[in-house]
Amino acid sequence: MPEHKDLWKKIPDAATLQSLKKVELNELCDVLRQILIETVSQNGGHLASNLGVVELTVALHRAFRFPKDQVVWDVGHQCYTHKLLTDRARDFHTLRREGGVTGFPSPAESEADCFITGHSSTSVSAANGLAKAKKITGEDGYVIAVMGDGALTGGLAYEGLSNAGRSHDRLIVILNDNRMSINQNVGFVARHLAKLRIRRRYLRFKQVFGKAINHIPLIGAALYRFVSGQKDQVKRNLYRSSTMFEEMGFHYLGPIDGHNIASLDEALRSAKKLERPVLLHVLTTKGKGYDFAIQNPDIYHGVGKFDITTGKTSAPSASFSGVFGQQLQKFAAEDDRICAVTAAMTDGTGLKDFAAAYPSRFFDVGIAEEHAVTFCSGMAQGGLRPVFAVYSTFLQRCYDQLLNDTALLESHIVLAVDRAGVVPDDGETHQGIYDVALLNTVPQMTVFSPSTFEELEIHLKQALYDVQGPVAVRYPKGAALPTSVEFAPTDRPYTFLRAEGAKTLFITYGRICSNVLEAAKQLTQNGRPTSVLKLNRIKPIDPKCVEAALPHYHVHFFEEGTPHGGVGEFFGNALAHNEFARHYTVHAIEENPGVCTVSSALQKAGLDTEGILRAVSGDVL
Amino acid sequence: MPEHKDLWKKIPDAATLQSLKKVELNELCDVLRQILIETVSQNGGHLASNLGVVELTVALHRAFRFPKDQVVWDVGHQCYTHKLLTDRARDFHTLRREGGVTGFPSPAESEADCFITGHSSTSVSAANGLAKAKKITGEDGYVIAVMGDGALTGGLAYEGLSNAGRSHDRLIVILNDNRMSINQNVGFVARHLAKLRIRRRYLRFKQVFGKAINHIPLIGAALYRFVSGQKDQVKRNLYRSSTMFEEMGFHYLGPIDGHNIASLDEALRSAKKLERPVLLHVLTTKGKGYDFAIQNPDIYHGVGKFDITTGKTSAPSASFSGVFGQQLQKFAAEDDRICAVTAAMTDGTGLKDFAAAYPSRFFDVGIAEEHAVTFCSGMAQGGLRPVFAVYSTFLQRCYDQLLNDTALLESHIVLAVDRAGVVPDDGETHQGIYDVALLNTVPQMTVFSPSTFEELEIHLKQALYDVQGPVAVRYPKGAALPTSVEFAPTDRPYTFLRAEGAKTLFITYGRICSNVLEAAKQLTQNGRPTSVLKLNRIKPIDPKCVEAALPHYHVHFFEEGTPHGGVGEFFGNALAHNEFARHYTVHAIEENPGVCTVSSALQKAGLDTEGILRAVSGDVL
Repeated sequence: MPEHKDLWKKIPDAATLQSLKKVELNELCDVLRQILIETVSQNGGHLASNLGVVELTVALHRAFRFPKDQVVWDVGHQCYTHKLLTDRARDFHTLRREGGVTGFPSPAESEADCFITGHSSTSVSAANGLAKAKKITGEDGYVIAVMGDGALTGGLAYEGLSNAGRSHDRLIVILNDNRMSINQNVGFVARHLAKLRIRRRYLRFKQVFGKAINHIPLIGAALYRFVSGQKDQVKRNLYRSSTMFEEMGFHYLGPIDGHNIASLDEALRSAKKLERPVLLHVLTTKGKGYDFAIQNPDIYHGVGKFDITTGKTSAPSASFSGVFGQQLQKFAAEDDRICAVTAAMTDGTGLKDFAAAYPSRFFDVGIAEEHAVTFCSGMAQGGLRPVFAVYSTFLQRCYDQLLNDTALLESHIVLAVDRAGVVPDDGETHQGIYDVALLNTVPQMTVFSPSTFEELEIHLKQALYDVQGPVAVRYPKGAALPTSVEFAPTDRPYTFLRAEGAKTLFITYGRICSNVLEAAKQLTQNGRPTSVLKLNRIKPIDPKCVEAALPHYHVHFFEEGTPHGGVGEFFGNALAHNEFARHYTVHAIEENPGVCTVSSALQKAGLDTEGILRAVSGDVL
Repeated sequence: MPEHKDLWKKIPDAATLQSLKKVELNELCDVLRQILIETVSQNGGHLASNLGVVELTVALHRAFRFPKDQVVWDVGHQCYTHKLLTDRARDFHTLRREGGVTGFPSPAESEADCFITGHSSTSVSAANGLAKAKKITGEDGYVIAVMGDGALTGGLAYEGLSNAGRSHDRLIVILNDNRMSINQNVGFVARHLAKLRIRRRYLRFKQVFGKAINHIPLIGAALYRFVSGQKDQVKRNLYRSSTMFEEMGFHYLGPIDGHNIASLDEALRSAKKLERPVLLHVLTTKGKGYDFAIQNPDIYHGVGKFDITTGKTSAPSASFSGVFGQQLQKFAAEDDRICAVTAAMTDGTGLKDFAAAYPSRFFDVGIAEEHAVTFCSGMAQGGLRPVFAVYSTFLQRCYDQLLNDTALLESHIVLAVDRAGVVPDDGETHQGIYDVALLNTVPQMTVFSPSTFEELEIHLKQALYDVQGPVAVRYPKGAALPTSVEFAPTDRPYTFLRAEGAKTLFITYGRICSNVLEAAKQLTQNGRPTSVLKLNRIKPIDPKCVEAALPHYHVHFFEEGTPHGGVGEFFGNALAHNEFARHYTVHAIEENPGVCTVSSALQKAGLDTEGILRAVSGDVL
């Protein structure tokens, strides 16, 4: 295979793209897919979803002019081809590398990216706002939202559609139906879309052209094999109506074969003429063009490095997620009340085996974090012991449900907060640096922050059995940093490592304990004895921790998270209340690190061993 | 009219209720309505919605046994009859009074209230969890969720229905369709329900019985006049199917006349037999039984004292909401970019006149706070200047949209946060004591906290024109406390009133400035000179504020909000960073005040003048 630096040159500019003929378009799609596969095999990333929208994205760039027209990619991880077709082809080999092309839409990166995405189900609301602005300011252009069927399981999508549908604005919602909501087993969306797919006229297409298009592989039930929209057959007046979308106020077009550019061209031309909100239902195949990805869309949804020829991905290494899943399963074996809930992240949160072992106590609610929490609170009130496993960044989506539906009731639900702290590669919308500040504001909430697998086991058990009310156990993506043996796993709320004669104290929690301890040891060895206070339970803080800090002359708090509302801020206030008269500083992550590695982000924030040493080097001893 | 203390005795116990005949039931409903009208006319409260569900609640209590069966009231303000029928009839005259019967479901008050509500669209998710618990633990009983059509405009309701529908549990969702979503002009729900209401068989009912039931007054279009479900005619096999609800997995029954107990009895009997999720669509009239309330369901939705005979409500007094609405309208007259957004709170947030004056720049999105914020961010990215007016407690519902869709993009949207601080009468789910802590954790966010109408005007202008990125202006319900003239309205971030020779400093913001200043004056007069630092912009804090505090020996921060993540905590940490060596204390609202008056809550938290004086009386001078 040729290298990237050659391949990207084959991508035409916007003007040329318009005039390409069918054969040339097919060639272009092959090139684009080759770049996608090669790049992701090297850099990791979202593969299956990007392979599924190559033709759709090409058709969008034939029908529209960016940035005059604007496209909002829901969730955003399927925007790679859009990036290749705008101004990021040359640098695309830097995908998801620090300083390189990011894996999600980024207005800071290109004016072709008009809105930030990363969390699901926001695109229609954002596009609704952008289209409203065009109308009110009299600016020309269309606004397009592209959302998957999975995103439709989120309530925000429904709010967005209900509102955008009655707007009379030039807004085109493209429903990229790759039948992923079926995997999530969420009844309504799957059922409604299945019904649309098998409409009568659509079946007539199928009877005529069925064989020609039947090469698209089986994903679920036989129904889902059908695709429609043969070239030149796509006429608006042949499309069937959709009860739900039309009641929402959209003109419904579809379903269309999302891998047939001629069909897409025609459908987009029709949509543009309508001058009102249109919902274009497009059927695509996740992983299209790479067999391994088609067969394993889950594995190739977000994937690390892999071998293109064999499809071999690197073996999953031990992770906090895996330990959490195993431990929870162990507890569930002995306690019938334990239930596990996920918002469409069964694999990511380590619950795959739990789901198989205890199907009646496992709930994948779709991309519906709000529902997940209120549902858990209901279960807890009914005597169960629900555990909601959720990424730190997605926990932000259910704040009111935590406060109002859970904390005010003192419901005992357990949050297993995964991807807490710095999250590599995915950029600013996926950073787990806000959950501590968020949880700090929730009354009655208890929060544990284990640093190692062993501590996760201990604190999960405490969360299940020793705590009243809502409780969170938060842990980073991947594995622990190499942690010094001095921190023996404990169920006590903190560990205090006293250095003889220390006037300096380091306080910290979570993953970076390892770096903090290493720095303290070096300082101690070099004649500046430094004690370390490691917090295991970060809310509530044991008053003894504050007492332990008071005798020191220099107290430094190191925090892998935002300083605004973080534990360091809480601790500083507690010191002030205790008339602490000396030197206190919080070192935290002031700026969202964006695309990074864990070590680069910690380094930049001064939370690596060297940074910690540097931070205290100016102390007047 | 007889007094309450007699009337409540006419309410039968649960066993007797079963055996009542039609005439007796009608008499009972009359008594219940009389109690509702009398009590609310005295105490204020939610009237129209409660009058609408009298028969429905009676029917629920005939069909089910509480607390073995469980009912979750969505939003919860329609639970008065349920309270009268369980164990709170004798004390019902204390409704919404401190220490009395609360206006929302409260598990702390009675075991007949199984879940806390107050915010919209949560009931199905909670009921889903409660029903799941019954199934897993093997406990007997049904779970019922009662939600209005307005609640259906919230995405969480859709998530809840999508998930509950596929549960196979014994769950009955009662859709109390009083056509309020029409007022909110939200297309989809209104359209879908209208379609259900005019189904063919239903129309047949109408042809036969139309005249008899046509006394129900016109609310919207002619379509909505129809009601169905004549006595003895309600047979399950006559009900029509609902596309959406059936696709969600529910057995759909309806529509039923929600004021005909025989119809309701029959429908509930049918629903109980089904042993799977049922959606029962009930048509009711808001305000039923009290003409003034029927004619003005908006006014009588939540109402203060009123005269029963004349229907006269007390004239609205000047309020922050009113000032906000007037000012925004003034700015909008000169700036075409200004748009106003509300989540079904046009009146409450003072936007009624704005809506009439600028209909194309006014958006009521339904009970969809998440959509509101992302929509605003889209508008801001498109060059508009959107203002989202929202109650403090409902701001909790759009945290992720503020952080991810707005702050990371640095979108300039303005939040007009109404009902900030202590909120009287409505209880714990409506308190505005968490918004500051929440906003403190959002990067890029600017927050103003005016104490007077004049300050609101100034800060709103600053928010619109002088600030980058997201900005909030927060103000309390009602009017300001009598504020001393010393605080001249200013656009500066703080006001420092220095007392000659002061070693004591009070810091505060918002409404309670008045109390704090009064206390400081008394202390100064009594020989303890006390300075006051009033924060106008509470995020970011001007570093000069910290500098100004440092020279004092006693610094007291008074905060009308939660201390956890509040400004006082931030300030304490800032002092610690500056090696402040003396006495610092935060006085805030540690416990959710629940049902209260503003003065009782401030008094309890020690934030009235006397409390402030008490708090500092122990200082060692």
